[in-house]
Amino acid sequence: MKRPKAFGFDVFGTVVDWRTSIARESAGFLAAIGRGDLDAERFADVWRQRYQPAMANVRDGRREFVILDVLHREMLVDLLRHHGVDADALDPVLVTDWAHAWHRLDPWPDSAAGLARLRALAPVVTLSNGNVSLMIELSRRAGLEWDAILGAEHARGFKPAREVYLATAAASGVEAGEFCLVAAHHSDLAAAREAGLMTAYIDRPMEYGGAPAPDRDQRQDWDYEADSLTALAAQLEART
Amino acid sequence: MKRPKAFGFDVFGTVVDWRTSIARESAGFLAAIGRGDLDAERFADVWRQRYQPAMANVRDGRREFVILDVLHREMLVDLLRHHGVDADALDPVLVTDWAHAWHRLDPWPDSAAGLARLRALAPVVTLSNGNVSLMIELSRRAGLEWDAILGAEHARGFKPAREVYLATAAASGVEAGEFCLVAAHHSDLAAAREAGLMTAYIDRPMEYGGAPAPDRDQRQDWDYEADSLTALAAQLEART
Repeated sequence: MKRPKAFGFDVFGTVVDWRTSIARESAGFLAAIGRGDLDAERFADVWRQRYQPAMANVRDGRREFVILDVLHREMLVDLLRHHGVDADALDPVLVTDWAHAWHRLDPWPDSAAGLARLRALAPVVTLSNGNVSLMIELSRRAGLEWDAILGAEHARGFKPAREVYLATAAASGVEAGEFCLVAAHHSDLAAAREAGLMTAYIDRPMEYGGAPAPDRDQRQDWDYEADSLTALAAQLEART
Repeated sequence: MKRPKAFGFDVFGTVVDWRTSIARESAGFLAAIGRGDLDAERFADVWRQRYQPAMANVRDGRREFVILDVLHREMLVDLLRHHGVDADALDPVLVTDWAHAWHRLDPWPDSAAGLARLRALAPVVTLSNGNVSLMIELSRRAGLEWDAILGAEHARGFKPAREVYLATAAASGVEAGEFCLVAAHHSDLAAAREAGLMTAYIDRPMEYGGAPAPDRDQRQDWDYEADSLTALAAQLEART
């Protein structure tokens, strides 16, 4: 296995801990709207569960591409409605700020250091469904440094659509077979491998608060496997 | 004048010294193909002069968007033909490497430090006609750090088309009026102002080797003016 010439990163779950951050932010917003009775961790989980169906409408061509900020806000409004809260009756600035909680996710402890070490080896770009402004704010807050923000908004599609992987590799200036997706999700890695990319799996057992991952049945023998980005960097540094 | 919420940078001429770098690289390639008789600085100037006409075909809708690497290679082949050299008879790897000389431009002495200081104030993105892989390679080599690589390839158009400025501001997550183009070219700044952006002019008297700039008649009273990126940073740091 040759060392990749560039790395593309899944971000939600792989680089940042969305669940803890969204639960913490949602606890504050729920209290602010007088619904402190709702469980914030459960709220985070259900918000995230609406993620794939929301993107499917774009992937399947039923809807024009929109950035993830738009979908996050729609999912939030829908989830509030499910709990009997009319988002139209709330301050729209509060609703947008809540939807933008996805701009304020904390990194896993190894993320910034691991990315910096990998970036010393080859270009490191985002290959996330998150939009550019989300990635800019998240990365500045978390101290994450990238060579470019690519993925969904650049490709105008959502993973696991094949063209998102291929467009990200092409924009990075390398062949698909020289480009490695780094992700904590077997489903994402499976689609990347199908598109011809190299694959690196990062085990993040706390992504779902310790509950099993929904895509655990899609596990394969990936090109690289590690339990942190610093451990992946150490593997690759040893391979010249 | 309020401080901008994000900065978009022109790169060729504003952040990097394309002329010295392209002349140096072309001197080597010209010698390698047995045409050391041609003046390398003149070769660099004429290559650059073909830049606007090449992009105009895309801007005017006569051609689908292609990345600047493609246009740089076509301009080079055409320029060689003008000097009686058939590029098809040369090693295609050499021709591509020569076209990619635009990935290896040296920064002005103040660029890396100035960008770092501006980036401490607000997000800093590229708003260049260069493609993503060009910007990645150039920035890694020159030690330039950005929050995102935007501009032409993201917007699928070339400056001075209005939508390139607006798409870059939007992807950065700010209103056009809060977004500042930083550029050494009056023509670029005039188009940005027309699109509603803030403007910062950087004087780069050596961009054309000391010769007058071709767009000097388009000078206006820009929102900010400085003779280096560090000087611009100092002005903005003083404005809270």
